[in-house]
Amino acid sequence: MRYEELTIEGRNAVMEAFRAGKTIDRLFILDGCQDGPIKSILREAKKGDTIINFVKKERLDQISETGKHQGVIAYAAAYEYAEVEDILKAAKDKGEAPFIIILDGIEDPHNLGAMIRTANQAGAHGIIIPKRRAVGLTATVARTSAGAINYTPVAKVTNIVATMEELKKEGLWFVCADLDGEVMYRQNLTGPIGLVIGAEGEGVSRLVKEHCDFTAKIPMSGDIDSLNASVAMGILSYEIVRQRNFK
Amino acid sequence: MRYEELTIEGRNAVMEAFRAGKTIDRLFILDGCQDGPIKSILREAKKGDTIINFVKKERLDQISETGKHQGVIAYAAAYEYAEVEDILKAAKDKGEAPFIIILDGIEDPHNLGAMIRTANQAGAHGIIIPKRRAVGLTATVARTSAGAINYTPVAKVTNIVATMEELKKEGLWFVCADLDGEVMYRQNLTGPIGLVIGAEGEGVSRLVKEHCDFTAKIPMSGDIDSLNASVAMGILSYEIVRQRNFK
Repeated sequence: MRYEELTIEGRNAVMEAFRAGKTIDRLFILDGCQDGPIKSILREAKKGDTIINFVKKERLDQISETGKHQGVIAYAAAYEYAEVEDILKAAKDKGEAPFIIILDGIEDPHNLGAMIRTANQAGAHGIIIPKRRAVGLTATVARTSAGAINYTPVAKVTNIVATMEELKKEGLWFVCADLDGEVMYRQNLTGPIGLVIGAEGEGVSRLVKEHCDFTAKIPMSGDIDSLNASVAMGILSYEIVRQRNFK
Repeated sequence: MRYEELTIEGRNAVMEAFRAGKTIDRLFILDGCQDGPIKSILREAKKGDTIINFVKKERLDQISETGKHQGVIAYAAAYEYAEVEDILKAAKDKGEAPFIIILDGIEDPHNLGAMIRTANQAGAHGIIIPKRRAVGLTATVARTSAGAINYTPVAKVTNIVATMEELKKEGLWFVCADLDGEVMYRQNLTGPIGLVIGAEGEGVSRLVKEHCDFTAKIPMSGDIDSLNASVAMGILSYEIVRQRNFK
């Protein structure tokens, strides 16, 4: 297991962290703030060993990494990256065919956060990201994931291609999001599957694409080049949901 | 027609504005910048009456509203809001049943930009937004729309409900994105349709929801409450695309 320091900002994100059983070392609350959500957070904090500090707005603004703390910032001991095995185990425990999202170099923390949120809602068992040239689990990612980061395991690997080859031995098929692929509605996206989404602008890297079993495209009838990366990931993920559960 | 001032920032957004035939009054380029995209922009600028200024980075940073100018900022005369009639005409000209997106109070410019981009790619004929309590066509919206703002008409109306009632007379049905609705895959989303998406956090307002003909939900099997608004809009829009074109 690897660890990274993390500040959690905003009411929903902090509350979700408590609910998910995260260890919160320290809590900063805007002095005088006494509304419902803040009271709920304080109640949770008092159950554990959390140090609570009531501070002025200037102090919160200074600590804040996102600029959107909504009057509450928590210091979590660490965010835990999962291992790929944990993701496979999550699928096995649920008695479902694995559904894994591979993100090949997402750099925008808002996109990564939205994707973790979507993966959670679509019932994906986990996300795999590369160590290099990609954003990790930062405070902005945690916040934009709206709490999903506490539930959906994210594994960070050195070599995406090597990980894909290992997963193929476990029976997974890999579908690559690609503008030149076959229309997704006409592909069979059932069974144990890994959905590979490329970086903003550049798409999936050549080597990773070569190791995919097939490609799928979102039909686009517009005048521009592409969709936002997290929107495209959502549309493809839900085509998988439809084919798995609603056909 | 109403107009709003606009600065367009970033290479793709500026190039798309030229391609779409927008009138660019003035162009600010980073002094010494001579790469391919900048040369293409200059070539386009010289075709028209654009005033070109080569400036230092500090000046660009000062003008920039998004902080992401990539060495180029354009002042467009104005962005033009469309009228609802223009959207209906766009559908008629294409010989297609109208497909309109109604955004009930989106406040985040990144979400609105991504939604315009998705509407364009999904073949929607236009977007309707309310005048109050919602973001308009700002520079950040234009930039995150990746140029789609030049192609997909956006109409701004005083009263969403009144506009919906007018559109019902034109034969449109309204489907409301709602967590308590019927699963979208089981709804009939073909024919002349208006897709109503609510604000981040709050969803579709009560009055607007009451004027919808039916509700549709995205199935969610996760541990959190909702999806990012622009991701949800993308998933619902593409279910409409699938039912219209790939059934």
